[in-house]
Amino acid sequence: MKIGELGEFGLISRIASGVAQGSGVITGIGDDAAVTALSPGMQLLTSTDMLVEEVHFRRLWHDPYRLGRKSLAVSISDIAAMGGIPRWALLSLAVPPETSIEVLDAFTHGFLDMAAEQGVALIGGDTCSSRAGLTISVTIMGEQVPERIIRRSGACPDDDIWVTGTLGDAALGLELLEKGALPSTSTTDEREHLISRLLDPLPRAAAGRALAEAGLVSAMIDVSDGLLADFGHIAEQSALGGTIRLDSIPLSPAFRTVLQSHPNPRHDLVLAGGEDYELAFTAPAANREKIVRLMKKCGIGATPVGIVTTLPEVTAVFADGSRYAPLNNGFNHFA
Amino acid sequence: MKIGELGEFGLISRIASGVAQGSGVITGIGDDAAVTALSPGMQLLTSTDMLVEEVHFRRLWHDPYRLGRKSLAVSISDIAAMGGIPRWALLSLAVPPETSIEVLDAFTHGFLDMAAEQGVALIGGDTCSSRAGLTISVTIMGEQVPERIIRRSGACPDDDIWVTGTLGDAALGLELLEKGALPSTSTTDEREHLISRLLDPLPRAAAGRALAEAGLVSAMIDVSDGLLADFGHIAEQSALGGTIRLDSIPLSPAFRTVLQSHPNPRHDLVLAGGEDYELAFTAPAANREKIVRLMKKCGIGATPVGIVTTLPEVTAVFADGSRYAPLNNGFNHFA
Repeated sequence: MKIGELGEFGLISRIASGVAQGSGVITGIGDDAAVTALSPGMQLLTSTDMLVEEVHFRRLWHDPYRLGRKSLAVSISDIAAMGGIPRWALLSLAVPPETSIEVLDAFTHGFLDMAAEQGVALIGGDTCSSRAGLTISVTIMGEQVPERIIRRSGACPDDDIWVTGTLGDAALGLELLEKGALPSTSTTDEREHLISRLLDPLPRAAAGRALAEAGLVSAMIDVSDGLLADFGHIAEQSALGGTIRLDSIPLSPAFRTVLQSHPNPRHDLVLAGGEDYELAFTAPAANREKIVRLMKKCGIGATPVGIVTTLPEVTAVFADGSRYAPLNNGFNHFA
Repeated sequence: MKIGELGEFGLISRIASGVAQGSGVITGIGDDAAVTALSPGMQLLTSTDMLVEEVHFRRLWHDPYRLGRKSLAVSISDIAAMGGIPRWALLSLAVPPETSIEVLDAFTHGFLDMAAEQGVALIGGDTCSSRAGLTISVTIMGEQVPERIIRRSGACPDDDIWVTGTLGDAALGLELLEKGALPSTSTTDEREHLISRLLDPLPRAAAGRALAEAGLVSAMIDVSDGLLADFGHIAEQSALGGTIRLDSIPLSPAFRTVLQSHPNPRHDLVLAGGEDYELAFTAPAANREKIVRLMKKCGIGATPVGIVTTLPEVTAVFADGSRYAPLNNGFNHFA
């Protein structure tokens, strides 16, 4: 059956039928607005992302289950970057009427699996017809006590610059797809690992929250447009700069293996590839050991990759001190 | 200049530059998530709407300023229907790169004018490129104390069914446009009044909030898909039914004038036309005078148009008691 035959209310019922009751949800899907209660003393964190077919994803590459997961994951990543606790989500879909129910079911399944993994409840949304491709809009709400919310503006001179996990994997995964590799559900080989980092990113919600609640970090952002551009936002909003040491940036074994025969080290993928969905943060040098221990508890690596400077300029340098000249400064959606 | 030349960050800056500081906004546009503080004792109300070019609006008819106003108005209408106080909004836009800056500026201007009129602050959003037409996604947040929030499920047998304002204007306005009338900015004639009800609806936020805070109503919804369908939701969620008296439904002078030479009374427009953005609510008969007085204070008419029944069926009847047979039951986005 096609979505066009199911109709708007059928589509909403179908999505709503899979939704679990969430904590703090007073009234979920089915009224004019959802009603939720923040935990006592918490402020509200809100972010929204729009994903457009053929701009953010291609259905040839992106199976609907993983697309559903990713649609929520990229929004949760924004709550993680504030040190927040993700709570509730709204999902809007503009769907071509000829879309099959199976595709929609797989998408919803993926979205709700990611929600369950991250403790997020789907509380509302909107559905409508689209003339050209699938458009997905997700709003995420989270919460945190005011004194633990981490902003981009809090970096201090001489703070370390950190990143979680490894950078460049998703960008290299995209390059593999563009060169004709096809995603599979197997994760046994390096190429599939890289493609999976692109198609099914895991938001660092537990890590971001733990760092904020331990009071260890001064500024934080999620790396969605590449480290140079995203740390650039921290630098700009903190009225500071920073030096990133290229040889300190953590790379995955898969990244190294796939690129081992490549003529150049592909710093562009690492610094400006985009879609890493890792966290970049700044912290006083005194917190180094505590941060590594805390991130280990969260099951994720974290690596100091540079230092915050008073000179308001962001540079990346090689081990010999020479400067990296960027090819570009992150992803421009309109380029 | 075109949006494609301005780029994503230029577009965000351009929108953000017009945004006024809002109450309860701790951190607005410019971080990974917005930070807001609910008023003490309030619960959070959230709703989201997606508007797709050529599905929800046509740019031939809809000047960008009024489209900006309407994009926010339809979401505020959902908060009004809960008896809530609208507070903050998120705006996401997928924009064709060839769109001119002037169009975007006019859209933003309209959105922010509506926001200012309704006490809403724009706190975040997303922008990206679209391959086919403009897509707009708005999330609205509001608040209200728990005991004053009005749901669809609260209707009681023998309650009056009420509507604010007049019904059918927007649907007749759409018919005029479809038959070749063109919108103008003049509001001097009846046709333009009807078209304006479609293109620039005014959400009944003050009325919805006042009714809820006075404790006068048992259930409420906004009329976006036509009274039959929307009162149908109240009936369904209250496990009741209702009888709507066709001759009681308030019609505007413009509606009557334009249709005076029409061979039939066009009950379809009134009952199932959609996009009225009035409020339909239920209330004990004892509250009649208080409701009329309160709505007068809010500058809007309110009319009892029927009665809630224990028989779980919604019907519309003529003055002689005969039943109206609906042509359709509201707007299906996928039809």
